[in-house]
Amino acid sequence: MSENAIDRLTEIFKRFPGIGPRQAGRFVYYLLRSPPSLRRELVDAVRGIAEAAKQCPTCFRYHSDKQKECSVCRSASRDTSLLMVVASDADLSSLEHSDTYKGRYFVLGGTVALGTDKNPTLRTKELLASLPMRIETGLQEIILAFPANPEGDATAFLIRNKILEATPLGFTPLGFKITALGRGLSTGSELEYADPDTLRNALENRR
Amino acid sequence: MSENAIDRLTEIFKRFPGIGPRQAGRFVYYLLRSPPSLRRELVDAVRGIAEAAKQCPTCFRYHSDKQKECSVCRSASRDTSLLMVVASDADLSSLEHSDTYKGRYFVLGGTVALGTDKNPTLRTKELLASLPMRIETGLQEIILAFPANPEGDATAFLIRNKILEATPLGFTPLGFKITALGRGLSTGSELEYADPDTLRNALENRR
Amino acid sequence: MSENAIDRLTEIFKRFPGIGPRQAGRFVYYLLRSPPSLRRELVDAVRGIAEAAKQCPTCFRYHSDKQKECSVCRSASRDTSLLMVVASDADLSSLEHSDTYKGRYFVLGGTVALGTDKNPTLRTKELLASLPMRIETGLQEIILAFPANPEGDATAFLIRNKILEATPLGFTPLGFKITALGRGLSTGSELEYADPDTLRNALENRR
Amino acid sequence: MSENAIDRLTEIFKRFPGIGPRQAGRFVYYLLRSPPSLRRELVDAVRGIAEAAKQCPTCFRYHSDKQKECSVCRSASRDTSLLMVVASDADLSSLEHSDTYKGRYFVLGGTVALGTDKNPTLRTKELLASLPMRIETGLQEIILAFPANPEGDATAFLIRNKILEATPLGFTPLGFKITALGRGLSTGSELEYADPDTLRNALENRR
Repeated sequence: MSENAIDRLTEIFKRFPGIGPRQAGRFVYYLLRSPPSLRRELVDAVRGIAEAAKQCPTCFRYHSDKQKECSVCRSASRDTSLLMVVASDADLSSLEHSDTYKGRYFVLGGTVALGTDKNPTLRTKELLASLPMRIETGLQEIILAFPANPEGDATAFLIRNKILEATPLGFTPLGFKITALGRGLSTGSELEYADPDTLRNALENRR
Repeated sequence: MSENAIDRLTEIFKRFPGIGPRQAGRFVYYLLRSPPSLRRELVDAVRGIAEAAKQCPTCFRYHSDKQKECSVCRSASRDTSLLMVVASDADLSSLEHSDTYKGRYFVLGGTVALGTDKNPTLRTKELLASLPMRIETGLQEIILAFPANPEGDATAFLIRNKILEATPLGFTPLGFKITALGRGLSTGSELEYADPDTLRNALENRR
Repeated sequence: MSENAIDRLTEIFKRFPGIGPRQAGRFVYYLLRSPPSLRRELVDAVRGIAEAAKQCPTCFRYHSDKQKECSVCRSASRDTSLLMVVASDADLSSLEHSDTYKGRYFVLGGTVALGTDKNPTLRTKELLASLPMRIETGLQEIILAFPANPEGDATAFLIRNKILEATPLGFTPLGFKITALGRGLSTGSELEYADPDTLRNALENRR
Repeated sequence: MSENAIDRLTEIFKRFPGIGPRQAGRFVYYLLRSPPSLRRELVDAVRGIAEAAKQCPTCFRYHSDKQKECSVCRSASRDTSLLMVVASDADLSSLEHSDTYKGRYFVLGGTVALGTDKNPTLRTKELLASLPMRIETGLQEIILAFPANPEGDATAFLIRNKILEATPLGFTPLGFKITALGRGLSTGSELEYADPDTLRNALENRR
């Protein structure tokens, strides 16, 4: 096994998201050409996340803080009346960087897979189980923040239904609203090149 | 001048939108290689639009119907309570193809140009002059449908102000609303790759 | 027929090489918005090429000079010992712009079409018929300048064979060489990203 | 320092060739979501190359074989009469994959940097020092295989001169040839879109 370390490492990098065989090979050559200190840093950092990495028991995002809960779930300054349900850690990260949202999150772990049997395991049960506690701390709105594609729409439909079913009488009033992110022209869009579906949403959501 | 017809035609095609010298040359070779009937058809069709082309005196779009007014402005089935102000004929055409809007249009003739002195001549006066007639036929909403970029936003700001100034007291109630197309996730958008501005709009416009 | 001049002109532009329905529509709007003088210029120029356009009886390229023969075939300063056979007027034009070749041309009218029955009519007969005259004026080399793809290679194979068959004994010496453009690294190529076929050619053609 | 393992690992991935902050973040999330076994495998593989990685003392490529020399330099079946000088390990790897070359290699370690003072350290001395041994084992041709760009051309010029200077009388006969990879149309090229420089090379290198 130790015979061809280069091939082994190339194989691992090929599994990284968005990385083909060619770029995997370049990563390995990059590491080969680098001073030993970089390889040591990489080994330390990977071990570091292996040790420090934990999943927040509240929102299920991955983090490496010392505490069990992530910084957003622990923060007293985040608005507990808003809960945004996102598909992935990457989506959460993108929203945090946009610096527009001040509520809490829940990471569902994926979207419904259409046209295939391999559905990812979504944390629907964990979401529902957390609602009583969240209602107690003032929950007023669940924002379904899924991608603007059929998979995202199917996921929103599913989650909305599961939440409604989980309430005593199976319908509203829930004590909180369920909303979805707005659809329309994204920044930079020109009408001439916008697809009909986006134009329809932009028209419906005019204000 | 008649010495080099190929160069002359190439020069004209180079002025067409989105056409560089190379493609202009290919157009000319295409015409050269084509049977004489195609060149005759092209000549006839260009003369045809030269004769038939007219600008609708109501919405200012170009058309080639026999009547002076365009088919949308003449149609009794279009909703006169809605007026959508668009920058260009191309935007109007894109909206008509999306088959989502049943009101009337007004073609402003461009957007404000930022960072340059060469402002296009916008038909602001013509728009304002048409409002009394439109109010009489039931206008309830003006939809500002400009591109989702700084130029589009500046144009919306300008037009909104001009309309407000033109009302007797300079403020609402106007008898009609002024709205803008909705901003948010365009169809197909993934949160992970959305820009912060789009995420902000999607969050603000959640429903 | 004159009812919808816009649609008619759009249809004609859609047949232009590389132009889809959307850009065809933009061309029409461009002409509609333009001053009448531009439409007149376009009509004149198209008629101009219709009248002036002629195919050179020697090399078969299209041109609009007053003389029947094109400027390259007429020029006393072009080297008659070299004949380059190209697929199209566009290829000839690209070579002339590169300013590297000082011989004569012959435009074959296309390449062999692989995987389809619709073979274009190649001017093979015309090429062969012109060889005695060209040999008389000193022909020493025919350069087959076809695209570096399977269609180009098949065309070179075909033309080479036809020339060899046309000689009295069906084989060399012909009194002239038949060559093909060199293959290898094109300008700007990096070895890391070059395809295996290009690397093979670059290695074989090293000097 | 151990406080934020995620940030530390992100920083390291950002230094990988072709990786921006976004993809670096995705790599980290990928590792976080992966089972502990993958992180262990990655740590092992990186340590594996750290331990196994060696630079071939003959051609200077990186490899992880047990032997000090790389497999090409050790192979009795590779042709010692040919020496190809390449800029980088990646170029060597690309040539090996093309399966067209059966000689030996020398990795120079980069190309001359034009328009900057930061010239990489090229192994010119090591190349020259290896020539006597190579001449003894039958060297007949050095192939300069650099990218087809100004940097590659300048490197070829430099290396050629250094080799000529290093011979006793500073000029040929050397006992071996110095060649360069062929230039011309790369596979798939169409003449219409080829740049003038490539057309010039294709014409010069016709055969």
